[in-house]
Amino acid sequence: MKKEFEFIDYLRNQISDKPADLIAGIGDDAAIFTTPKNYQNLISTDLLIEDIHFKLEYTPANLLGYKALAVNLSDIAAMGGEAKYFLLSIARPKTLSDEFLIDLLSGMFELAKKYKVSLIGGDTSGSVNKLFLNLTILGESLVNQAVMRSGAKPGDEIYISGKLGGAALGLELLQKGKRLTDKSLTEIEKSALLAQLKAEPRLDLASQLVKNQLITAMIDISDGLSSDLGHICKESRVGAIIDSALLPLFDSARMDQALNGGEDYELLFTVPAEKASQIKELRVLFPNLTITKIGVITSDLTKWLIAQNGQTPLESRGYDHFG
Amino acid sequence: MKKEFEFIDYLRNQISDKPADLIAGIGDDAAIFTTPKNYQNLISTDLLIEDIHFKLEYTPANLLGYKALAVNLSDIAAMGGEAKYFLLSIARPKTLSDEFLIDLLSGMFELAKKYKVSLIGGDTSGSVNKLFLNLTILGESLVNQAVMRSGAKPGDEIYISGKLGGAALGLELLQKGKRLTDKSLTEIEKSALLAQLKAEPRLDLASQLVKNQLITAMIDISDGLSSDLGHICKESRVGAIIDSALLPLFDSARMDQALNGGEDYELLFTVPAEKASQIKELRVLFPNLTITKIGVITSDLTKWLIAQNGQTPLESRGYDHFG
Repeated sequence: MKKEFEFIDYLRNQISDKPADLIAGIGDDAAIFTTPKNYQNLISTDLLIEDIHFKLEYTPANLLGYKALAVNLSDIAAMGGEAKYFLLSIARPKTLSDEFLIDLLSGMFELAKKYKVSLIGGDTSGSVNKLFLNLTILGESLVNQAVMRSGAKPGDEIYISGKLGGAALGLELLQKGKRLTDKSLTEIEKSALLAQLKAEPRLDLASQLVKNQLITAMIDISDGLSSDLGHICKESRVGAIIDSALLPLFDSARMDQALNGGEDYELLFTVPAEKASQIKELRVLFPNLTITKIGVITSDLTKWLIAQNGQTPLESRGYDHFG
Repeated sequence: MKKEFEFIDYLRNQISDKPADLIAGIGDDAAIFTTPKNYQNLISTDLLIEDIHFKLEYTPANLLGYKALAVNLSDIAAMGGEAKYFLLSIARPKTLSDEFLIDLLSGMFELAKKYKVSLIGGDTSGSVNKLFLNLTILGESLVNQAVMRSGAKPGDEIYISGKLGGAALGLELLQKGKRLTDKSLTEIEKSALLAQLKAEPRLDLASQLVKNQLITAMIDISDGLSSDLGHICKESRVGAIIDSALLPLFDSARMDQALNGGEDYELLFTVPAEKASQIKELRVLFPNLTITKIGVITSDLTKWLIAQNGQTPLESRGYDHFG
């Protein structure tokens, strides 16, 4: 698989079912797809770069492939959409084995099958000395039903799915030398490592939230709760009060990891108070996923994050890959 | 502009008109757009990587930005589509100045304005030591009117826009130390350098070819004529005979540069013989662009490229960035 054409042929052979709306996938200058009547298109793109977003020394190839697609699917989940297609750009250093590449793709296609998303294009290249991945994800939502960051209203309750801080704790453990293959790992350590190395897109939860019209705004936790809540506040022109005592911390994670760690890929969403009872009902559908109320949207733009003592406004300190 | 959010705000400020079909651009987890009735979507993605696709030592930033978008637009042109939106992923080494980045974007937005394509998303990151760009382009075409590689029929005439080999000649001159800023450059050298450092997407020509329903298959010359003609032959299950004496060589370019050099981003397309006279009429609309008949599609799959002596079958030797 040394040649680009061989690699593309390999990818084409991985693809089984052609979705009805896909006119042409890999193999032409561009893919062609139709959008069903009454639907609109969603699109997002995410970079994953060696030694910026991950290190090869501690990253199993199949989990890297899984996570690369998961973080993109998470963006579609955050819009309340249905994921449909993806494009994969991969720049491969010569030192990277065919075996690693195939394991990476195998993890990616495992997740693609789970959510029925189809690879419809991409680009490949060599790279001087780092592995670069860029995925572009396409989704759909019914016209006017995509959930944006800008819809939160004062009085809305703020909810988060799952636990926070696990990915940051996992990264800390990896940096301390812990590895998924260590036989001495505790269960908590293993879950934290997996929280960092793998991510689960919350597409099913998002779909239920949208179907039942429960939410006014949504975002996924990629940069960290403090940053991502800040995005909702900025786009919605509102403030927020979070009671940090309510934050659902990942086992053994610290408060700063939950607030600023990022990469948890949970959903943060706002619900009008009169619909709060329906969130309770929704929890029955997701027995393995916590859905926690953590605060309320306010009209006071100057405060948007309050620590446990009810006094200290915290600053956004989410991770900045760019700086 | 050291922070990711500052950079994104800078990009948002570059964007002037919001197209009617764009519901939400930069600023949410995904962009939202609708597809007009009777249209289908086109999508493609391209990597541009420092020291693989370009070297900073000889690449003016604004031309790099221009070319990065141009090669993506060229993919939409090759489908006979209209370009609409793009997404930009950029991974920036710390050594790269804000000035370089702004010049790069300025070149990119210059071309974006020319063809009315809107930036609607992207991702940014640091990079350990190389500049990485990945663009994703979205376009539209009327349902069933996109031109694929697979439609060529025996007897169709083969045409190419523009001249071939200029980009390869330009690369050779750059590698020999010639620079755009050299005052001693001849006019031919300058055009060759620009053929390598800049590319012009042939969207207007493609649009006319499709509007008049003149073509059965099309591809853009990115890997080199020999490779790209090979793609048409493979997907259409046909052969081709090219008379190399007819190839429109770029001034001072050699035959091997025209056949295998790549990066010319001209359009290669096939026309049923009975429509050949309409190609002649079309030339009037494009006084500054040659449109040259170079051969014919055959049913003999074993031969698909014949040298000037009419005997020697040539092999595909287009550039492979991946190997």
